[in-house]
Amino acid sequence: MERFFATYLIETPLDIAVAAESLAGEQSSGTFVSVPGETEALKQRFAARIESLRELEQSDTPSLPGCLSSENSYKRAEVVISWPLENVGYNLPAIISTVQGNLYELRQFSGLKLMDLEFPASFREHFRGPAFGIEGTRQLADVLPDRPLIGTIIKPSVGLSPEETAKLVETLVEAGVDFIKDDELMADPPHSPFKERVAVVMCVVNDHAARTGKKVMVAFNISDEMDRMLEHYDTVVGQGGTCAMVSLNSVGMAGVKKICDRGQLAIHGHRNGWGMLNRHPFLGIEFKAYQKLWRLAGIDHIHVNGIQNKFCESDESVVRSMNACQEPMLGGFPILPVVSSGQWGGQAPETYRQTKTVDLLYLAGGGILGHPDGPREGVKALQESWEAAVAGLSLQEAIQESSALRRATEKFSKHNCSSPVQTPALHAASSP
Amino acid sequence: MERFFATYLIETPLDIAVAAESLAGEQSSGTFVSVPGETEALKQRFAARIESLRELEQSDTPSLPGCLSSENSYKRAEVVISWPLENVGYNLPAIISTVQGNLYELRQFSGLKLMDLEFPASFREHFRGPAFGIEGTRQLADVLPDRPLIGTIIKPSVGLSPEETAKLVETLVEAGVDFIKDDELMADPPHSPFKERVAVVMCVVNDHAARTGKKVMVAFNISDEMDRMLEHYDTVVGQGGTCAMVSLNSVGMAGVKKICDRGQLAIHGHRNGWGMLNRHPFLGIEFKAYQKLWRLAGIDHIHVNGIQNKFCESDESVVRSMNACQEPMLGGFPILPVVSSGQWGGQAPETYRQTKTVDLLYLAGGGILGHPDGPREGVKALQESWEAAVAGLSLQEAIQESSALRRATEKFSKHNCSSPVQTPALHAASSP
Repeated sequence: MERFFATYLIETPLDIAVAAESLAGEQSSGTFVSVPGETEALKQRFAARIESLRELEQSDTPSLPGCLSSENSYKRAEVVISWPLENVGYNLPAIISTVQGNLYELRQFSGLKLMDLEFPASFREHFRGPAFGIEGTRQLADVLPDRPLIGTIIKPSVGLSPEETAKLVETLVEAGVDFIKDDELMADPPHSPFKERVAVVMCVVNDHAARTGKKVMVAFNISDEMDRMLEHYDTVVGQGGTCAMVSLNSVGMAGVKKICDRGQLAIHGHRNGWGMLNRHPFLGIEFKAYQKLWRLAGIDHIHVNGIQNKFCESDESVVRSMNACQEPMLGGFPILPVVSSGQWGGQAPETYRQTKTVDLLYLAGGGILGHPDGPREGVKALQESWEAAVAGLSLQEAIQESSALRRATEKFSKHNCSSPVQTPALHAASSP
Repeated sequence: MERFFATYLIETPLDIAVAAESLAGEQSSGTFVSVPGETEALKQRFAARIESLRELEQSDTPSLPGCLSSENSYKRAEVVISWPLENVGYNLPAIISTVQGNLYELRQFSGLKLMDLEFPASFREHFRGPAFGIEGTRQLADVLPDRPLIGTIIKPSVGLSPEETAKLVETLVEAGVDFIKDDELMADPPHSPFKERVAVVMCVVNDHAARTGKKVMVAFNISDEMDRMLEHYDTVVGQGGTCAMVSLNSVGMAGVKKICDRGQLAIHGHRNGWGMLNRHPFLGIEFKAYQKLWRLAGIDHIHVNGIQNKFCESDESVVRSMNACQEPMLGGFPILPVVSSGQWGGQAPETYRQTKTVDLLYLAGGGILGHPDGPREGVKALQESWEAAVAGLSLQEAIQESSALRRATEKFSKHNCSSPVQTPALHAASSP
């Protein structure tokens, strides 16, 4: 019988083996007292199993409140737990309840983070995964495999009418972007009804495609209640669009999977809300595990932030996320990482140096629209920066080659984060 | 134009007004640089607004990593932000992306928690809310308003066949419970297919109803992908069932709302995964805000843990959650709090003393099935404990009146949490 595996980072005042047992018990056949039906045979067949325990460092203080008190220190460990697939079957919400569920509330732990997941081979047959992935997205957007897709975000995020949005899209497609997305704050509001917005925007995109042969990919934000998402999806298909965006955490697994199952559009997965699930180092879920669940659901793109981003995420963590996306899962399930947050081109050399891939979608909102010489130069700065990056040039060298990038650098290099405080104070507070 | 409001607890190294501005900017018209389209008129109409700022204590250390460093202390404050409804319309996933979204990743904050939400009057017209709520659930389960519903959870959580489950349900309905639920780990696995399980369980429940006139409510866990959830829902309706359970966080808002919209079954909302969203005092979402989103979606019951529970949640927090459920929202949207986790009856007097309500569903799994004299006495212990609680008796006094409760106390009082360590060490580590 196949099993699935979850790796956790735990912190506990108890003996780590005892703590791991309570984790396995809570998430399979156990409860707080033994009950008549929990026979040896049942346990043998259905109990979660501790596959490995690796002791790490100790801490003097608990990372989270609410745990059992200890006179000693709090032990950290990496624990791998497995479950028989027959406990849940091919049911993503039930799998999520099994590998996460009540675990975070156990007072046996002063820290618990889901680090990785591993699914058995038969998942390859039962889940289609991304319908387009990297290659399909390149085909839809007409971008060869030698460079990243260059994209942008409609800004301001909210407030533009459909006509103003279409006007901006016109500027952007003429500037040469491959991809445009709605902001996650823009869905189907009274001041920009979804249907109207798609109609006027796709009119611009289709016109441009007729003239140039290139259909720019637009990720319309369909995030909404279920039936309205399906309607929005049909609207995009009907107007010749190629992509829809969903806010993964706000819509949730059942809704996202249903959308992905349609298979006619590339699905752009936005992870807003992510900080809540990941910002604490000993709580929540690590990106490596998170993105696997969404690849099973079938999304084609997923956000990963970017090097030198405007958020709290470290470059090291961003690189880890990009690497996670590149790793084949069950031999496939290719997904395109979306690099964004405070990007303007200057981060391209460092991004390439650290990841050695061009299989990504590089997004700049303010970085394109806010370029001192306008959006066309903004796009050029991004394109030329990536050419230089792939050629192995440093940012300084790239600036010599590209006036658009030089002008961008003059404006944006002081904006590496959105903070009002001065640059010397910008280093993140020490992370544990 | 109507507005909606969110209250946050923030912690920041910046001036709190500056930090609040960046929060409002990120979640409405702003990005990291100003862009051409962000006109004064647009900002006037669509920008989020700071409604109030209340400075709280300061902290020497940041609660979360990744924030801007500070030579001074980290200031804490309560901030109320509002948005015009026309930014999003009546779209729950878009509202979630607006009030949470990227906020948790902002390095302007070393702590950010969504504490409360307030929606405008027109939400009453656009959202039906719970189709059954407290009164409807009492009617379905035939329980008068003078006492809580007494319920239980099928244990072991996984591993029982449909026939074994039905056998256990027979014992439980004969023992006199009002309510039975699947564990959240039990959905539609190969060893207990949903359809089969519902058929044999409802056969027992319907037989019992025919004999006694009381149809015990069974919350079958329909959590799954969208289409399968709808099938499962129809299965329950078809067999005469009255309730379905969904794992809120694992299924997600779009899926849960779609299920609630059907309106034929009471929807039992399980919040497994909750610890990830709430365990850290300066990250995530507080229950008061969380339950409002789900009441808008239309669930009828929601889990709140219980006094002296087996998890990390303090009694004070549990009482706050129960009070939140009692507070009418938009003048209605009644929801039944589900008290569970390590309950066995002994907690009833204290629960009643602190909340003064019987509008709750009191769940004991091990507490009923593990009673030393069997499930019938387990149910009796719960019933008599609640009678005593409502009569104003203490646990000691209640034990004098009820032999079932006395026997339960002998066994369970040492199990107030599932920990293997001794009782003197059971006090939770100090919470900030």
